[in-house]
Amino acid sequence: MGSLRTFYQVDTVITMTKTNTTSVGSPYIPSRRKDKIKFISFGLGPVGLLILQAAVARSDFELVGAVDVNPSIVGQDIGRLIGNNREIGIPVSPDLLPLIDGIISQNQVGLVFHATQSFLDQTTPQFIDLLSCGLNVVSTCETLAYPYRRYPNLADQLDQVAKSNRCTLVGAGINPGFLLDLLPIFLTTACQEVTGIQAVRNIDAAKRRGPFQKKVGLNLSPENFTQQIETGQLSAHVGLAESVYLIGDTLGMNLDQVVEEHRPVIADCAYSSAEVEIEAGRVRGVNSFGRGLRNQQEVVRIDFNAVVSSQEYEEIKIEGYPPVIWRNELGTAGDSATAAVILNMGKRVVAAQPGLLTAVDLSLPHFTRT
Amino acid sequence: MGSLRTFYQVDTVITMTKTNTTSVGSPYIPSRRKDKIKFISFGLGPVGLLILQAAVARSDFELVGAVDVNPSIVGQDIGRLIGNNREIGIPVSPDLLPLIDGIISQNQVGLVFHATQSFLDQTTPQFIDLLSCGLNVVSTCETLAYPYRRYPNLADQLDQVAKSNRCTLVGAGINPGFLLDLLPIFLTTACQEVTGIQAVRNIDAAKRRGPFQKKVGLNLSPENFTQQIETGQLSAHVGLAESVYLIGDTLGMNLDQVVEEHRPVIADCAYSSAEVEIEAGRVRGVNSFGRGLRNQQEVVRIDFNAVVSSQEYEEIKIEGYPPVIWRNELGTAGDSATAAVILNMGKRVVAAQPGLLTAVDLSLPHFTRT
Repeated sequence: MGSLRTFYQVDTVITMTKTNTTSVGSPYIPSRRKDKIKFISFGLGPVGLLILQAAVARSDFELVGAVDVNPSIVGQDIGRLIGNNREIGIPVSPDLLPLIDGIISQNQVGLVFHATQSFLDQTTPQFIDLLSCGLNVVSTCETLAYPYRRYPNLADQLDQVAKSNRCTLVGAGINPGFLLDLLPIFLTTACQEVTGIQAVRNIDAAKRRGPFQKKVGLNLSPENFTQQIETGQLSAHVGLAESVYLIGDTLGMNLDQVVEEHRPVIADCAYSSAEVEIEAGRVRGVNSFGRGLRNQQEVVRIDFNAVVSSQEYEEIKIEGYPPVIWRNELGTAGDSATAAVILNMGKRVVAAQPGLLTAVDLSLPHFTRT
Repeated sequence: MGSLRTFYQVDTVITMTKTNTTSVGSPYIPSRRKDKIKFISFGLGPVGLLILQAAVARSDFELVGAVDVNPSIVGQDIGRLIGNNREIGIPVSPDLLPLIDGIISQNQVGLVFHATQSFLDQTTPQFIDLLSCGLNVVSTCETLAYPYRRYPNLADQLDQVAKSNRCTLVGAGINPGFLLDLLPIFLTTACQEVTGIQAVRNIDAAKRRGPFQKKVGLNLSPENFTQQIETGQLSAHVGLAESVYLIGDTLGMNLDQVVEEHRPVIADCAYSSAEVEIEAGRVRGVNSFGRGLRNQQEVVRIDFNAVVSSQEYEEIKIEGYPPVIWRNELGTAGDSATAAVILNMGKRVVAAQPGLLTAVDLSLPHFTRT
């Protein structure tokens, strides 16, 4: 064994200068660029378009097709649709199948950016079509971020279809998929013990898109809000239970109950800005939260507050040893960050093992342009 | 293709209550416990002992051996060494080889916690011994956190030895290995573009261990500090260049120069506390920083400040789109967090592919007790 020690050699001498400064390591040698990831955009609503726009602007992605059922955009050139001055020769296709006949046969598509609906029972047929064509998929579908609890049977079926077609399906996004689940999970790396996790995201609902404002019930009466939440007409934030379960199951917290709740925040005075007007006594926003319980004790809690004229921030608190509190005083710009998470996770999805996975199963995500 | 759509079924009905509350998902079914990870502690200085202590306290690790060359502890029972009331039947061995003759043959060891020296040319013979025995290793060796630049040849040799013995070697720790590199890298997941990264860690040197205080030169004269840094007698913080390169290379920032610098912080008055006394005009602490340059522009900068009586915090700033600033106002408790990172990364190392890897190559690290 001793002779093994002669294997090694010191191969860099560190030179100190008189200013206590050291220059370390060899200069950067650019690696050969990998092939671009060829992608299809599936779903071109506001979020789908943002993702598409961000991907088209980058040198490491290449658009090969786009799908949306909306008749008002079917047939339009993507270049025009994302506000570019010139056409790029790719029109919106109303259906996947004619599109893939032309491009999948050449086995050139690596990834689908999927952005349609929030609930997995709505999106499963779309995923089955995409996976059956051998396409890797990263999706904004909120309940896909951790599908095993709300939809155990669907999750099982999708995993089987993905595996038998040797491709990968992952749900991602800023929330669920990053801020209130993946980031708290990652921050526990510095903890020897974790007894509780709380994560809060606070956004100013006035600064968000119209469909988002509608989703959280702005300007409804309190009674209307409650009624529409109860009947499912109003979704508010979707994916609270998914974030809580992703945290609880990943960290081995043995949750025995997860509860979601949506409470209206009522305006005590009128709010008026360029973007939105709220009357006093009407819904100014929502406090949506998910709680993970073990033996009737709350061990995970995530809060998503979207309230007109409130301060934007995020805070993640890990109770344990040592305890940790991280805070983002700026708040995360929701839409552009969502597109970023989808693009950056998408690169991981292409390299991942086949099957239905979560963001925790992928190798450490991060931005890169290469 | 259309018939595939009949595959799916909705398998959970969400029931709303009158309080806007929903209980989601099926109750937790505990999975069968996996086997404990059997480990050897290699190096029982202050940090090695902390790691050992933390691992012994957990139900998911099992100590099978311990190695240290220090004659004052060789032969001592580990139970006594970590301050327990009873012996546990495992004495400190002065060498790896007699130890592994007894235990490796049964192929029962999954992991080595390695905590000896800071520079890879010092630790390489130890790693070659460990890897040659087929042992997975996670180490606090600072320059192992990203060894490819300072020690390209050693890195290549260690990778070959690890691969040919089908085991994995990773450098980790709170810093380098987490706070000033892995965490900033992970936070870029929410960015479409990254143009610069700055990370600062500020610690109160008065609250740290004696060896640490010595390492940063407390109470030296400014002249002595500079001289001892220049001759290498004083290391200050090790691994700045490793953090900068880990960030720059991972994010594809094409750094063409990385510079390390250590500046003494001089006491303008006397500091006196239970832990430490500093005379006016003497070294109160150090500002160590690493800078990553591209075309003479600083695109990565990490600062590690260890100064007596200064506020503890960390701050990570990502310049890009969207920009991000995260701050930990508490500061991270260095020693207990180091042990945590080593334990939590260690679990990932056991499952990883063979070779010399970095924390970025592992799947998302996190705390778990299962």
